[in-house]
Amino acid sequence: MSLLDATLSAIEPVSAEALAAAEERQAQLTKPAGSLGHLETVGNRLAAIADACPPPVPEPAVIGLFAGDHGVCSQGVTPWPQEVTVQMMLNIAAGGAAINVLGRQAGADVWVTNVGVATDTPEHGNIRDRRVRPGTADFTQGPAMTLDEARAAVEVGIETANEAIDGGARILLTGEMGIGNTTPSSALIAVFTGADVATVTGRGTGADDEMLNRKVQVIERGIALHSPDPADALGTLAAVGGLEQAAIAGFILGAAARRVPVIVDGVIACSAACAAVAFDDDVRGYLISGHAGAEPGIQAAVQHLGLHPLVDLNLRLGEGSGAALALPMVQAAARLLGEMATFADAGVSEG
Amino acid sequence: MSLLDATLSAIEPVSAEALAAAEERQAQLTKPAGSLGHLETVGNRLAAIADACPPPVPEPAVIGLFAGDHGVCSQGVTPWPQEVTVQMMLNIAAGGAAINVLGRQAGADVWVTNVGVATDTPEHGNIRDRRVRPGTADFTQGPAMTLDEARAAVEVGIETANEAIDGGARILLTGEMGIGNTTPSSALIAVFTGADVATVTGRGTGADDEMLNRKVQVIERGIALHSPDPADALGTLAAVGGLEQAAIAGFILGAAARRVPVIVDGVIACSAACAAVAFDDDVRGYLISGHAGAEPGIQAAVQHLGLHPLVDLNLRLGEGSGAALALPMVQAAARLLGEMATFADAGVSEG
Repeated sequence: MSLLDATLSAIEPVSAEALAAAEERQAQLTKPAGSLGHLETVGNRLAAIADACPPPVPEPAVIGLFAGDHGVCSQGVTPWPQEVTVQMMLNIAAGGAAINVLGRQAGADVWVTNVGVATDTPEHGNIRDRRVRPGTADFTQGPAMTLDEARAAVEVGIETANEAIDGGARILLTGEMGIGNTTPSSALIAVFTGADVATVTGRGTGADDEMLNRKVQVIERGIALHSPDPADALGTLAAVGGLEQAAIAGFILGAAARRVPVIVDGVIACSAACAAVAFDDDVRGYLISGHAGAEPGIQAAVQHLGLHPLVDLNLRLGEGSGAALALPMVQAAARLLGEMATFADAGVSEG
Repeated sequence: MSLLDATLSAIEPVSAEALAAAEERQAQLTKPAGSLGHLETVGNRLAAIADACPPPVPEPAVIGLFAGDHGVCSQGVTPWPQEVTVQMMLNIAAGGAAINVLGRQAGADVWVTNVGVATDTPEHGNIRDRRVRPGTADFTQGPAMTLDEARAAVEVGIETANEAIDGGARILLTGEMGIGNTTPSSALIAVFTGADVATVTGRGTGADDEMLNRKVQVIERGIALHSPDPADALGTLAAVGGLEQAAIAGFILGAAARRVPVIVDGVIACSAACAAVAFDDDVRGYLISGHAGAEPGIQAAVQHLGLHPLVDLNLRLGEGSGAALALPMVQAAARLLGEMATFADAGVSEG
């Protein structure tokens, strides 16, 4: 059995019993009913994932950041030169990018994996070299990658999740770097959610009106060429996806198979989460949405996934920044269930 | 010179030079321009407050939580019995309330000050006993308190800020507990912003339609009785305010006088921030808004104060919960300015 198949067969639904116990406990804690808003929802979800009420505080955390390049950049869908992918991957490996700072603030380690950067790079102690291929092919000309390559990229993500959890991580966060990667992400979201391409395609990190129009047309051409089946997660990733999207989908599957919550943010991670849920619908229960974000595809994806983003700081950076910012809130949600006094314990009158 | 007057005379505008330097530095960091959204605004504000770019990471943090009772509760403006104020103050002192959990998660100490609880309470090692009077008077019958009492409550807040900063705190967060305290808060916001009472009055922690209508009428009667002058901060606090609102206003003034940022959240803290700004308009620059919140008065207040709340988790708890949740983001905003690599340093091409 392949690693992917073994992982899929290990995924179980989250616990309805622990969810009910958490909902009941929320009503006993010294606060007006429902007054902790979305923190209550997240806390209850963590209980369902851990099959325990109260749930353990989910720490330590690992941000799995996957870097890749995209052949579709040759269609002029981004103002940034492709060389920035490898430059930023090296900047992240050196600790100088926003995600490094946010990871340090939140107490989360950043694991950088090269799953498909186009440029050849020397070995680097802080980069896991798991390159499946040097960037995808242009999906307007043929599939972005073969099915075997897509499976290999997904399995890179699964292996990364397993290594992080074996190393002690009890919550995973998704991250990414790849110039042009909002284009395959919008393509994936259009396929998996059934939304119109134009409604789920945005400006990425700086496309002007002309470029945005071209981006929509490029995605429409790609989808028309391949007619991907949304029930076929691997086929869709291979047709119009990207290597980091496939790896993140695997990272999510790996988390779910080990009953570990995973925080997703941004349009790239959301597209990968749609793919993960297409692999196995039970994955839904393990997802937590970090940041709302400016990309329109996020809205369609979180609706499809039934999620409510915790933060909306008007970020449009990617890297996993919104997930890192949400991490302390997710940990707080678990702590509240575990550490707050009940009305009875504290001798507080109920309203 | 009184402590209040001395504090007001020490407040200076934040630094325009440091603000400009921070804005310039944001453009050099390895990220698309503006892509860190509101975190950039907060980071720049921290630079202006500290008069330094990059600003120091604002830590350690103290949550100054002030408890008080409200004579206006006799008008039937809340479904909770007044005894809950002292019960919850004791719960907070024992570490069992939501704010304790959120403070631990964020690494912030909670200082509990009894500035005006109605019930006599025994001494408690974790409660600072600075009671000015046992609850306010019913402001529909006369002023909530005298001018001397209002000044004393403001000075309790100033002294608390000074003690926290003398003890090492480099960022302050406001917190409160007081059954019925959304009523004087909406009254203060209506006076200071000039908004209609009905548009800035909400359900607090559980008022039904009938109670909400009564609450609006009660506030309108109070304002009609006293006709408070919005330029007279102390007089307005005395007429229709509360002891914890006055103390929080002082806590904010104390922070500003020492050039320390202060995170406000919720309708009670927002009303106090409006009072602080009425004392001295330069206070604006030292404020950071934590949580948006469900109470309609918050919207009017943050608009009046020129703030943008960082978090919106549909909380309606109070206590300072939204400020505590925002703290890691505020610290992240400073860290990003100080720790991110520039395009030049990292050898990353600009878009």
